[in-house]
Amino acid sequence: MKLIRYVREGVESYGILENDNIIKIDGDIFSNYESTTKIYKLEDVNILPPVVPRKLIAIGLNYKKHAEEVNKPLPNEPMMFLVSPTAIIGQNETIEIVNKDNRTEHEGELAIVIGKEGKDIPVNNAQSYVIGYTCANDVSDRILQKKDGQFTRAKSFHTYKPLGPVIETEINPDHCKIEVRVNNEVRQQSNTNDMIFSTSELIARVSEVMTLYPGDVILTGTPSGVSPLKEGDIVEIDIEGIGCLTNMVNIKNN
Amino acid sequence: MKLIRYVREGVESYGILENDNIIKIDGDIFSNYESTTKIYKLEDVNILPPVVPRKLIAIGLNYKKHAEEVNKPLPNEPMMFLVSPTAIIGQNETIEIVNKDNRTEHEGELAIVIGKEGKDIPVNNAQSYVIGYTCANDVSDRILQKKDGQFTRAKSFHTYKPLGPVIETEINPDHCKIEVRVNNEVRQQSNTNDMIFSTSELIARVSEVMTLYPGDVILTGTPSGVSPLKEGDIVEIDIEGIGCLTNMVNIKNN
Repeated sequence: MKLIRYVREGVESYGILENDNIIKIDGDIFSNYESTTKIYKLEDVNILPPVVPRKLIAIGLNYKKHAEEVNKPLPNEPMMFLVSPTAIIGQNETIEIVNKDNRTEHEGELAIVIGKEGKDIPVNNAQSYVIGYTCANDVSDRILQKKDGQFTRAKSFHTYKPLGPVIETEINPDHCKIEVRVNNEVRQQSNTNDMIFSTSELIARVSEVMTLYPGDVILTGTPSGVSPLKEGDIVEIDIEGIGCLTNMVNIKNN
Repeated sequence: MKLIRYVREGVESYGILENDNIIKIDGDIFSNYESTTKIYKLEDVNILPPVVPRKLIAIGLNYKKHAEEVNKPLPNEPMMFLVSPTAIIGQNETIEIVNKDNRTEHEGELAIVIGKEGKDIPVNNAQSYVIGYTCANDVSDRILQKKDGQFTRAKSFHTYKPLGPVIETEINPDHCKIEVRVNNEVRQQSNTNDMIFSTSELIARVSEVMTLYPGDVILTGTPSGVSPLKEGDIVEIDIEGIGCLTNMVNIKNN
């Protein structure tokens, strides 16, 4: 099932996306909800980011081939950090690049959306804490990332975290193709089966440190092939079983 | 004025602390509130962390003498990162150290509490976005901090961010003494006038990157003199004009 968040006639709602129709739902996607009889066409609504998390957690270096690409040894535990949720935008919104002279790159990633509160979650029960999965673009300013050492600023500017278009609740996260295209040219192409730490392991290790809440999002790292973005680029993060997150690039003060 | 958050008979409220009396207030401290006629004794309530932020922002290396102590050049702009708000505890709660063999240290810090939403806030108007200031202890696991490179995990374990006891709304943040004592022995002693970036500069620079919301907290960095914590230690973060944040230390699985 594909959960979608949208605005129609000024009202924000969730719905279930089936083909190009949205069945409006009432209630809270994290507890109880039910379908209504209202059905809208996808083209008649504005899609919103599928969730507004309290915490947006990111994971460094989590694909084997990407680790080879940057000449780093495989980590023995996941490296986690936080990014500001104020950076999130949704489907079809524009990535506004702040520092035009810095190298700012796309990073296509599978994003875990947490469905219920948990702390010290065991690996073998981790998926029961997940409501579903979505696509993310972890846009990163490489100059500031290197300068600061800490990654928060380089990855937290407004619009630097496209998320969506839907939360898919029935995917197998350990085996799905992920492809990133810029202007229809493939830049990143991999499968989540190349991850160093599976989504269940990530949930377990993050929840050892911090309590996870419904709506929290964990970005699971990017495969090889990151590349710089330019004015007017169309970036697509396409994950098998979820869908395609599409955003345009604008360079501010260009 | 000193704003205090507390629980009494199972009910959470804010109040105004005058000497050892709390005048209960009704309403939202960030918009409209008024004093009630209910007055409680401080000893009859449990003090809570003064605020539950959406974002807990920390600043690295912001005291001149501390930069000398660790042999680092003075930064030309503030280095910011995020810590999980789930780490926050209040006055008299216990710091539970997770990794007993790691060096885990106190860091006394002045904390800014944001009072209204802002983005690209100008330095000369920054204080109008502040509701007040409180004391913080940025407890840090030095082994994980070095291992991860990113500071989030080392500083985000549950109980690693004592905050309180009150929000003081009328302090001059650019000139107040800060002292940290462990078991009554002075470990850190400085004045916020030794900061490299003033509180107003920090608010301006952070809000260039991420929108700040009411209740968000910025930890402004620690002065020289950090030292490891041991089982049974009593740590006090004492800031002139605010008060003294006191917490005990417990080593888990010791």
